[in-house]
Amino acid sequence: MELSPLSLAQSLLRCPSVTPEEGGALAFIEGVLKEAGFEVHRPVFSEPGTPDVENLYARYGRGEPCLLFAGHTDVVPPGDAARWTHDPFSGEIHGGELYGRGAVDMKGGIACMMAAALDFIRNNPEFKGSIGFLITGDEEGPAVNGTVKLLEWAKGRGERFDHCILGEPTNPNQLGDMIKIGRRGSLTGRIVVEGKQGHVAYPHLADNPIPGMLRLISGLLKEPLDHGTEHFDASNLEVTTVDVGNPASNVIPAEARATFNIRFNDLWNPQSLEEEIDRRLREAAGNTVRYRLTMDPTNAVAFLTPPNAFVGFIADAIKAETGFQPKLSTTGGTSDARFIVKDCPVVEFGLVGQTMHQIDERVPVADLDRLTGIYRKVLDAYFAAAY
Amino acid sequence: MELSPLSLAQSLLRCPSVTPEEGGALAFIEGVLKEAGFEVHRPVFSEPGTPDVENLYARYGRGEPCLLFAGHTDVVPPGDAARWTHDPFSGEIHGGELYGRGAVDMKGGIACMMAAALDFIRNNPEFKGSIGFLITGDEEGPAVNGTVKLLEWAKGRGERFDHCILGEPTNPNQLGDMIKIGRRGSLTGRIVVEGKQGHVAYPHLADNPIPGMLRLISGLLKEPLDHGTEHFDASNLEVTTVDVGNPASNVIPAEARATFNIRFNDLWNPQSLEEEIDRRLREAAGNTVRYRLTMDPTNAVAFLTPPNAFVGFIADAIKAETGFQPKLSTTGGTSDARFIVKDCPVVEFGLVGQTMHQIDERVPVADLDRLTGIYRKVLDAYFAAAY
Repeated sequence: MELSPLSLAQSLLRCPSVTPEEGGALAFIEGVLKEAGFEVHRPVFSEPGTPDVENLYARYGRGEPCLLFAGHTDVVPPGDAARWTHDPFSGEIHGGELYGRGAVDMKGGIACMMAAALDFIRNNPEFKGSIGFLITGDEEGPAVNGTVKLLEWAKGRGERFDHCILGEPTNPNQLGDMIKIGRRGSLTGRIVVEGKQGHVAYPHLADNPIPGMLRLISGLLKEPLDHGTEHFDASNLEVTTVDVGNPASNVIPAEARATFNIRFNDLWNPQSLEEEIDRRLREAAGNTVRYRLTMDPTNAVAFLTPPNAFVGFIADAIKAETGFQPKLSTTGGTSDARFIVKDCPVVEFGLVGQTMHQIDERVPVADLDRLTGIYRKVLDAYFAAAY
Repeated sequence: MELSPLSLAQSLLRCPSVTPEEGGALAFIEGVLKEAGFEVHRPVFSEPGTPDVENLYARYGRGEPCLLFAGHTDVVPPGDAARWTHDPFSGEIHGGELYGRGAVDMKGGIACMMAAALDFIRNNPEFKGSIGFLITGDEEGPAVNGTVKLLEWAKGRGERFDHCILGEPTNPNQLGDMIKIGRRGSLTGRIVVEGKQGHVAYPHLADNPIPGMLRLISGLLKEPLDHGTEHFDASNLEVTTVDVGNPASNVIPAEARATFNIRFNDLWNPQSLEEEIDRRLREAAGNTVRYRLTMDPTNAVAFLTPPNAFVGFIADAIKAETGFQPKLSTTGGTSDARFIVKDCPVVEFGLVGQTMHQIDERVPVADLDRLTGIYRKVLDAYFAAAY
């Protein structure tokens, strides 16, 4: 079997693994890793109201330290396949680029991890640590039967990990631009302002909730939450919707609703944020606005993997392979790293994200080789440092 | 045929004339008025997309001046008839009150007008003016095939009127409380603020329209439009809805929409108001908020029938019959008076509105007699003054 990153990536792209379909992708990985001596498990997780989802956990060696590669084989739907230059599930190469849904997010990244790990093992038959793969099929969908349950399952088996590389596409423009060493947290809140319905011609008999909602939102937005920290941007609050839903222009409505979402840095946790929101709303409401605030439950807290030796291995490998000094970033949305970080330090580094989730998602073949080279150098440095 | 206001009202209440059904109500009026010597017409009006509606125009005499009684026989639905103490279409009397849908809004008022007019004619066989009835079956519904078309139709026949009494329920608490000598106008406007959709984690790539909408609404509400005039309350602007309709709390929305309604007094017309709204929005928007303003077409301009001799006849009759000096008011919503005022001065006076549109709508039998007495005295004074 040819084990170049391109060949592995093509095989993965040809599996139609749109969430929640396994599509043959995990079976392919299982075959390749077993052949190379990995112990492979394929747990399936269920939850009422969501589809069953297949996952994969593989480990080579039982020694310490264990470096874990994490990722997902499921992909978002291709959209209108006719708008693609090349079939989204055919793995075709044109002009030096490999086309297909998942090329960068993130079957390409998984192919590079596999190629690097297999090459490392082949060249270091005596190495004493271990290498793990934690691959979910439920990252792009409900994300209920994926990484969280797979980590629980692994913990239940007594698995423990020392460090993790999550292979999501982290580079905005060129391979080597950016490592993610943390992520902001996410918290969503909902406000309902209660008024009293009535006819617009008799406003004194009604109580319009809309001016009150304006006061509350103005109160939320008046001051920045903070001005950022060493590794994080400023926390940011966005009001994502305001809805009254009153179709009658001669009626003063009874109620107004709004939702806001906060992306917060390491100065906050969900509880301290809720206290701050509560304080701002109470101040804005005074004695005149009747409202209710509820916060959605969140599992997305801010986290940081401090720039230490592990981050250094990755940055150095990137520098050696691409010439770039990667930016250590905490920007962007949430990722599965927020679950993994509860078990071990995690850093995210993968391909260039520009075409992800788009028509004609694609990756330069040269990027696959270079990312494989980077992961390969990380393995060398990581296990060299351990012994 | 017994022509007491109670008997006439009972006959009308027994006709199930929920808009757009005629229900026998206009046929009953036609029969009574023809018997008394009126010329009666029953035009039916149509409009694509709305039900055909029957209407009635009647006139006694061809001389001048012509005093017009206006009103409607259609009623709003009774709701759950089981919740009524007495069947909503049976015209039952209990505890001195006549029950039924339309008892005060406004079959009771029509019964009083008819009783007063027939009694006046019987007692003044030589009177030289004329008395008209303009009764629509489309006031509570779409109001498309009602008063507006009936007035056009009458004008086309060469009919002209000198003064009009519209018999809508005008009294808040007791018969004699309030005459309506005008109405505020109504103007509805709609604002769309355009932003740019994006992910909440990347606010610098998006443009949230919600803060801009807040600025525009705050600008609209900042200053009162005016402080009222001799006969009118202050104009009032209510924001009746704000809608974004974004279900995803991780998405910054592309657009926010709001609707407002203004009830305006005789300091304004729709054009001057639109200019003022436009000025306020431009000032609030500055160079940063991109928005569109559209105003709904309106046929509801503010109007006033100045307190002159005609209003005096009605106020004097009320004082004589009830002992109350009625308040001359312009409060409340719009009414068909806004259409009639284009043809002649119009004043509204009818029963007590407290139970209108409610379960157990009802009118004290004594109020029917007193309202008939008031209309009767107005006829005396009006035609006495004319000759």
